[in-house]
Amino acid sequence: MTSTVSRAVAGYPNRFDPAVLGELPESLRETIRRRDAVLGPGYTLIYREPVEFVAGHGAHLIDRDGYDYLDAYNNVPCVGHAHPHVAEAVARQVATVNTNTRYVEESLVAYAERLLATFPEGLSRLSLACSGSEANDLAVRVAKFHTGGTGIIVTRWAYHGITGEVASFSPTLGAGSPLGPNVRVVDPPDPRLAAPGVSLAEHMRAQVRAAIDDLERHGFRLAALITDSAYSSDGIFTDPVGYFPGMVEEVRAAGGVHIADEVQAGFARLGETMWGFERHGVLPDIVTLGKPMGNGMPISGVVFRPEVSAEFGRSVRYFNTFGGSSIPVAAGAAVLDVFEEENVRQRVLENGTALRKGLEEITRGSAHVAEVRGSGLYVGVEIGGDGEPDRARAEDVINDLRDRRVLISGTGQAANVLKIRPPLAFTAADVTRFLETFAEVAKVRL
Amino acid sequence: MTSTVSRAVAGYPNRFDPAVLGELPESLRETIRRRDAVLGPGYTLIYREPVEFVAGHGAHLIDRDGYDYLDAYNNVPCVGHAHPHVAEAVARQVATVNTNTRYVEESLVAYAERLLATFPEGLSRLSLACSGSEANDLAVRVAKFHTGGTGIIVTRWAYHGITGEVASFSPTLGAGSPLGPNVRVVDPPDPRLAAPGVSLAEHMRAQVRAAIDDLERHGFRLAALITDSAYSSDGIFTDPVGYFPGMVEEVRAAGGVHIADEVQAGFARLGETMWGFERHGVLPDIVTLGKPMGNGMPISGVVFRPEVSAEFGRSVRYFNTFGGSSIPVAAGAAVLDVFEEENVRQRVLENGTALRKGLEEITRGSAHVAEVRGSGLYVGVEIGGDGEPDRARAEDVINDLRDRRVLISGTGQAANVLKIRPPLAFTAADVTRFLETFAEVAKVRL
Repeated sequence: MTSTVSRAVAGYPNRFDPAVLGELPESLRETIRRRDAVLGPGYTLIYREPVEFVAGHGAHLIDRDGYDYLDAYNNVPCVGHAHPHVAEAVARQVATVNTNTRYVEESLVAYAERLLATFPEGLSRLSLACSGSEANDLAVRVAKFHTGGTGIIVTRWAYHGITGEVASFSPTLGAGSPLGPNVRVVDPPDPRLAAPGVSLAEHMRAQVRAAIDDLERHGFRLAALITDSAYSSDGIFTDPVGYFPGMVEEVRAAGGVHIADEVQAGFARLGETMWGFERHGVLPDIVTLGKPMGNGMPISGVVFRPEVSAEFGRSVRYFNTFGGSSIPVAAGAAVLDVFEEENVRQRVLENGTALRKGLEEITRGSAHVAEVRGSGLYVGVEIGGDGEPDRARAEDVINDLRDRRVLISGTGQAANVLKIRPPLAFTAADVTRFLETFAEVAKVRL
Repeated sequence: MTSTVSRAVAGYPNRFDPAVLGELPESLRETIRRRDAVLGPGYTLIYREPVEFVAGHGAHLIDRDGYDYLDAYNNVPCVGHAHPHVAEAVARQVATVNTNTRYVEESLVAYAERLLATFPEGLSRLSLACSGSEANDLAVRVAKFHTGGTGIIVTRWAYHGITGEVASFSPTLGAGSPLGPNVRVVDPPDPRLAAPGVSLAEHMRAQVRAAIDDLERHGFRLAALITDSAYSSDGIFTDPVGYFPGMVEEVRAAGGVHIADEVQAGFARLGETMWGFERHGVLPDIVTLGKPMGNGMPISGVVFRPEVSAEFGRSVRYFNTFGGSSIPVAAGAAVLDVFEEENVRQRVLENGTALRKGLEEITRGSAHVAEVRGSGLYVGVEIGGDGEPDRARAEDVINDLRDRRVLISGTGQAANVLKIRPPLAFTAADVTRFLETFAEVAKVRL
């Protein structure tokens, strides 16, 4: 790994290293060889010893030998792997009909009404697409159209997706995927990055102001500030809140819009609120939704303030073949059912708090743990003493947990932050199992 | 509709005109009102009186009142609406587990092997995504990376998708969606556009050469020529073949690659071959797949020659959350099962030929029909006498058919080409019903 470009790929947290393929069990080795012979570019497996699952339920995944893994990583199956209510809704729809938005679909209208009712007043128009990438791509397309600008501000190691456009403002993809000339980065809201005596709010506002100035100096008018409400790939920064209004004021003063990327933070992931931005006392102009929206069915969305999207709608056609078609909509509606029936948000709040407290207790006093942070069922444990990120130790912890059948992974620019982000189906018993296993690993590694 | 921009939206073939909302039946009117109050920008319904369907089977859709419509338009449900084999495969998978490409998935590997076996030698790497737009976006990203160029050549009224990047080379989206400065257009392969005495092959080659020269004159090195193998939005041009090798020679001589967009033409749509490009005796560098791939489940793909994708794979990460996850893959594999079990390609060839012959007979001698063309179950009927496109008459035919419960729509730059593109489940009896109904309408309109 000598070139910058290769480092970009190697930087992926907890990536399986193909060089050790020969050390894996025979059947796994053979499947991976076949996989490498047919898959296209850029695919990576995770863990030193990759895993394969053949079944799942709740926050549990079952491998070929019948072993039960505790899933503390996957956010897509938010109401639980193979949740029966969602499975039934999808099975029913796929056996009935699947039409698209060229036709009148009562189920689409009802779903849109119901989903929009979870948003604060003013965010009242929904477009559906297939992936978070498509959602962010459309959001930025509309933002550029509405503002007449092209400048984009994101956080320093943000990830917003993989279309050509969205990759151009996803700095975490690394040197192999260059940022656009119209893109500027600001620090994530990590209070430790503000100079002594400077509040986080002042620090964030000043950075946004400087980014706008630099864009304008290069001839780019601002289109949008895009923020992941959990700052997932930056390293997970959910608190403190309070810094946001100043940033957005600067953005609006420059004629830009604020896009809240809720692909990671939305759908009650952070426990206190349905949408991450609600914790910050701001009303975004555009909100993007994805991963957990259909519990695994490909569906994503963009929610607009109508005054931002109206002119685009009058001037540009947008037909997304699968976006808004009957099967993904059935899955999305079933997820909302489960949110109501199982009181998911309350469960996230309770079990998330227990999880974070347990992790704080286990790691208290460890010279290798810089911080435990997060909200709801999104927890980051930053590994590294004396301000030095310790990626190797983080990956030891991740893989020791995997060997004990508990799944997490890593994040952050230095790949040294444990990313603990279970399905929202995580129960109190799952918290207990997680903490007991984590404590065993911590004894050796932390 | 006075501005160019508004015309761009109004140009959409067979678009429902919201101005006549008040004339619709009460319940439909109310649903459309609710729909307009919640959906985001750019959505359009089709038909003068839009339709809603609550069930489907084969090439048939059933409305709320139980009426059976013959679907001669939807290509997504390729093996038939709600096909039981696909429905069962999806139901089983959604009730079992849905993992992603970060884990080893035997089902993904097996599907990739099986799908790639349908391609000519040399096209041997598969990436999966959610939509045709994502597939074309990735294809162009890889093409730019591989060639070091950014120039794109497409046909004059091509449509390749709706991400920001892909919309920039989809001229059919109209004036509201500007082409990129790096984009050039060439005529679709319509022999009538070649000057007298100039063969179609010479005409196409010369245009590609001129586009490359013009790109280079503006400082853009060629990345790719992208062709929809059915030229769907250009107006459906499947024959004659034979012009392709010269175009591709020019592209390769300029350092570019050829991307065959098979989102419309692939999966045996054109009857003679599984992939549209195979009819033309060329081997593309990249092939993109979409719509029918999962019979309605959101899944798309990109097939690469490994030498084109290898360096991108070493340098850039590409993780598509839903692309390659278990549920879409289960749907894709079930579609391939049905292709084998029902001998779909043979059925397409037979019924497509009967359909086209019947249409030729019915329209023979009509002063309003310029041409019946197409291949397999993709047929275009160009409406307009004396070389003048007659959009109004085409839309009369489309809506008369709709009123007789037969679904088609329109295409082409002037929206005057009847687009007849049924599910591949279209039977001989469906052909008969279609032709009988078409003959009734033709008596009045053609």
